[in-house]
Amino acid sequence: MTNNVTSIDHQIEVIRRGCDELLREPELREKLATGRPLRIKAGFDPTAPDLHLGHTVLINKLRQFQELGHHVLFLIGDFTGMIGDPTGKNATRPPLTREEVARNAVTYTEQVFRILDRERTEVVFNSTWMDRMSAVDMIKLAASHTVARMLERDDFSKRYRGNQPIAIHEFLYPLVQGYDSVALQADVELGGTDQKFNLLMGRELQKHHGQAPQCILTMPLLEGLDGVNKMSKSLGNYVGIQEAPNEIFGKLMSVSDELMWRYLELLSFEPLEKIRAKKTAVNEGSNPRDVKFEFAQEIVERFHGKNAAQLAASDFIARFRRDEIPEDIAEVSLEGEADGLTIAAVLKLAGLTPSTSDALRMLAQGGVKMDGEKISDKSLKLARGASVVLQVGKRKFARVTVS
Amino acid sequence: MTNNVTSIDHQIEVIRRGCDELLREPELREKLATGRPLRIKAGFDPTAPDLHLGHTVLINKLRQFQELGHHVLFLIGDFTGMIGDPTGKNATRPPLTREEVARNAVTYTEQVFRILDRERTEVVFNSTWMDRMSAVDMIKLAASHTVARMLERDDFSKRYRGNQPIAIHEFLYPLVQGYDSVALQADVELGGTDQKFNLLMGRELQKHHGQAPQCILTMPLLEGLDGVNKMSKSLGNYVGIQEAPNEIFGKLMSVSDELMWRYLELLSFEPLEKIRAKKTAVNEGSNPRDVKFEFAQEIVERFHGKNAAQLAASDFIARFRRDEIPEDIAEVSLEGEADGLTIAAVLKLAGLTPSTSDALRMLAQGGVKMDGEKISDKSLKLARGASVVLQVGKRKFARVTVS
Repeated sequence: MTNNVTSIDHQIEVIRRGCDELLREPELREKLATGRPLRIKAGFDPTAPDLHLGHTVLINKLRQFQELGHHVLFLIGDFTGMIGDPTGKNATRPPLTREEVARNAVTYTEQVFRILDRERTEVVFNSTWMDRMSAVDMIKLAASHTVARMLERDDFSKRYRGNQPIAIHEFLYPLVQGYDSVALQADVELGGTDQKFNLLMGRELQKHHGQAPQCILTMPLLEGLDGVNKMSKSLGNYVGIQEAPNEIFGKLMSVSDELMWRYLELLSFEPLEKIRAKKTAVNEGSNPRDVKFEFAQEIVERFHGKNAAQLAASDFIARFRRDEIPEDIAEVSLEGEADGLTIAAVLKLAGLTPSTSDALRMLAQGGVKMDGEKISDKSLKLARGASVVLQVGKRKFARVTVS
Repeated sequence: MTNNVTSIDHQIEVIRRGCDELLREPELREKLATGRPLRIKAGFDPTAPDLHLGHTVLINKLRQFQELGHHVLFLIGDFTGMIGDPTGKNATRPPLTREEVARNAVTYTEQVFRILDRERTEVVFNSTWMDRMSAVDMIKLAASHTVARMLERDDFSKRYRGNQPIAIHEFLYPLVQGYDSVALQADVELGGTDQKFNLLMGRELQKHHGQAPQCILTMPLLEGLDGVNKMSKSLGNYVGIQEAPNEIFGKLMSVSDELMWRYLELLSFEPLEKIRAKKTAVNEGSNPRDVKFEFAQEIVERFHGKNAAQLAASDFIARFRRDEIPEDIAEVSLEGEADGLTIAAVLKLAGLTPSTSDALRMLAQGGVKMDGEKISDKSLKLARGASVVLQVGKRKFARVTVS
């Protein structure tokens, strides 16, 4: 019994990690206390997906439920997708055919099974029960809620107050989503914070149908690489899960230290205790770059496997090394002229280029840096007393002092 | 061509008679100009009806369309009736079974075929097409209108502003009613003034489905016998079409002269010219009672046949005669006392009762009238010089003078 309670506390901690809201914990504890695998529902669009890390926040949470022994219902909302936009106003949302839905589902699952456990995942399509639903059933479903209640939903109330049209069928879609929970007998439903209203529909309709209401768990939107906007393809601040290992690795190494902790909370599968230990170490002076490095490896491994992750890591180290100014740099002292030495002459005299014409060519090509800054002005001169680090290409360095 | 136009003008006059609103006359003229029989739709509840004259206003209009050669679609809205009140809040509206619908339809048509021409009436049930409608079709139907548009309907906007709940399926019912017009390819739909919004739905959905929009004709609510409130069973101011001939006749003879003209407009099948002629005659001094008499006969004949109407008319005349004070009335002169004669003594002395105790009994039973007014005060006395008409029961009269 003590063990069981401990285990429920542990489960609650894992479930709550990174989440926005859990409704309601006492109910979830009761469900967990039964010891049976819970039915965890999450709904997805039937459109062809190209997932980025932002999308995986929710899928990671499903994976965590699986690790706790629960059963995932990966619901593809093809019923409404096959209706399309019946108002015909949204030309970009034509109805999907059954074949397109099936093809998209394959694309989807190919990606999510890099995260989810196939054995504990049931892919379900709501057309299975919704196609059999009659107009009478739909009317009865619509009778379960009021117009006022529906207009409480944020986007509806804004549009209504702003005199923007809401077609009546838009009131039916949240009911369909809620009814899916009834059909699936879901114990828990996951969604983004923007989905809370629809998730609550599921609770209410389940009660209406004599079922125990599902618990709802909302997950936050993930910030993009800029740390400000939500991750999105159109903003260019994303990490696609199908990107090349080196790309993913490099992008993740580029994030701020602050964002790094956020990503660890929502994207890493490291247990919380380990992450806490890392935080302590960084606070005591260790380099956050090392945390990022391990995290980047974890993510690349998730989507491309262990070998790819190791390769990406060593590639990154190699590039990083090449980009750094070496510790043991050649010191070159030159004797200056009254009006200074032209930069091309300096480069040749310091032995960084074989000739001044080579020096001019490198300048023109953008291959020359002074104190880490690219220079291209061939009229630049170094006066007496100047002391700079010059670099040609990736590997040739010299500290030049003009006396 | 001239004939045709004349005939259209005539049709429009008949159609407009007593109506509240016709939308839109030019469209209706166009439809009439095709010369084909138009499809005239009117919807009725599938609950068991017990019709009164108020209900017949609309049915009379259908009959007028039939007399003009058009085809009536008598729609029984059994689809929604068989759903009942899905919120379960209205216990008085349980779902009807298919058998109940069929039985009620028989009750209904038995009554309406006293007015409508069977040959030009098609009784249709909207379950025929609505039962086949899927949830997808319902969603598509719901997509054709906005929430804001629906909230424009009077009763919805009042309830919404008054924070009274509107269940979402209530938004679907006007769409179902509108869709019925699509399924029936109605040319014209009739309804009460309170139905205008729903009738307009039919127009819009027909356009949406590529049909020419139906014209709509709203009929006013009929005032009851009191001339103030709408005719209704619960107010007791009604004339039921299944009431006994004498009842109908007597009730119609009791209405005010003003209300009589209103009833003639909405309930009589006499052509407008004849009614205008009667008005002129009354204005020139003829008795409006004669107009009522003919009208009462027409209505009784409609629901009970010619013989019943003639019997009711002669019965009414007989009763009316009995109730009148006869021309040749007995004159009785009495000699008074100083403090007057008690009424009981007068009744006996005048020979109207065999004894004063009989007189007192008649007074107590309300069987005595003085100058047409009932009297019951046995202490009443007639002073010297009094001259009154006394009546005991229906038939005994005397003019009594006290000297």
